[in-house]
Amino acid sequence: MVKDSSVPEVVILRLPLYIRALTQMSEEGQAVVSSKSLGDRLQITPAQIRKDLSYFGRFGKQGRGYKIASLIEELTNILGLNRQWNSCIVGVGRLGKAIINYPGFVPEGFKIVSAFDNDESKIGQTVNEIQILPMNKIRSIVKENDIKIAILAVPATIAQSVISDLVDTNVKAILNYAPIAPKVPKTLILRNIDPVLSLQSMTYYLD
Amino acid sequence: MVKDSSVPEVVILRLPLYIRALTQMSEEGQAVVSSKSLGDRLQITPAQIRKDLSYFGRFGKQGRGYKIASLIEELTNILGLNRQWNSCIVGVGRLGKAIINYPGFVPEGFKIVSAFDNDESKIGQTVNEIQILPMNKIRSIVKENDIKIAILAVPATIAQSVISDLVDTNVKAILNYAPIAPKVPKTLILRNIDPVLSLQSMTYYLD
Repeated sequence: MVKDSSVPEVVILRLPLYIRALTQMSEEGQAVVSSKSLGDRLQITPAQIRKDLSYFGRFGKQGRGYKIASLIEELTNILGLNRQWNSCIVGVGRLGKAIINYPGFVPEGFKIVSAFDNDESKIGQTVNEIQILPMNKIRSIVKENDIKIAILAVPATIAQSVISDLVDTNVKAILNYAPIAPKVPKTLILRNIDPVLSLQSMTYYLD
Repeated sequence: MVKDSSVPEVVILRLPLYIRALTQMSEEGQAVVSSKSLGDRLQITPAQIRKDLSYFGRFGKQGRGYKIASLIEELTNILGLNRQWNSCIVGVGRLGKAIINYPGFVPEGFKIVSAFDNDESKIGQTVNEIQILPMNKIRSIVKENDIKIAILAVPATIAQSVISDLVDTNVKAILNYAPIAPKVPKTLILRNIDPVLSLQSMTYYLD
């Protein structure tokens, strides 16, 4: 982690949400927004929003609200989203293929540039113009293509071992779709995409 | 929200993670776990784990650790996961089909029992033995099948309007895959599955 570590991770997790909501408001024709109105949209208190943004300096003027366009730009810069991030996918089963074909990554600056699998019957095939390569190529390809992000779409049973393989590469961030709680060294950043966990955290309120 | 609202939502969000990690430990042959060891696995402090569990009474004895099997059972009961939850999917495009075919929901007690779409060419088709029905059937089908959870896999442009339709049904929880920050009334529980937001919250640490 090379950035200011005094900013709590929960704050960083909310910044993309702010960008998302601000972008929607901008598309709806709005130019200025109050922390109250942004908070209403996101079900976050205005005080929380002001506190989150205060970690990164002063935005907007007391009582005048935020200029949406410049706030989007500032947050985009803070998160390092003003450039393209090359990523690779590991595991090209049904899920991996759906991810490669997902149209939502590229407009946000995330490009899947290579794909890896250990199934020999898949190696050499292409999905959405990306050739599937064997796992033993990952270290060199990741380095050549300045890939910092790996998207993990392998079965749960092998996910931990694949993560161990990734530790030795240039990959610094993992988006994990396998339904496990993986162990990762502190040098790697991990986010889990886990619909089952999300469902399980809702039923508490339903029962 | 019918449950004790004095438990912070962040605590509820962590409980499924605890179940997941405890289940892994149990499968690895472990019978007892300390809050330190569970915390190491999840990168959560032992104090946080003890505090989270303390909302629900006393588990384990000071210095002896937690009995894994009984802690799993207690947490499962707390979250209401000791039963089957019927759910429906709205939007049966490529993503919706992948979700219907995802094998991970059923073992965790979530069964997709019906599917809805407004595309007339899809209505009447079946995916994984589930027949695709028109949206105007959703209110009656949801009621008949005691469906409390809707999984939303529609395009971003129509997601908000579909959510408004769902407000009038028996659905109480939405798992949203559309990349928007939807507005929902307080009577509905919402979780977003949003890989782009997850990616965007990692690049801060990479730049």
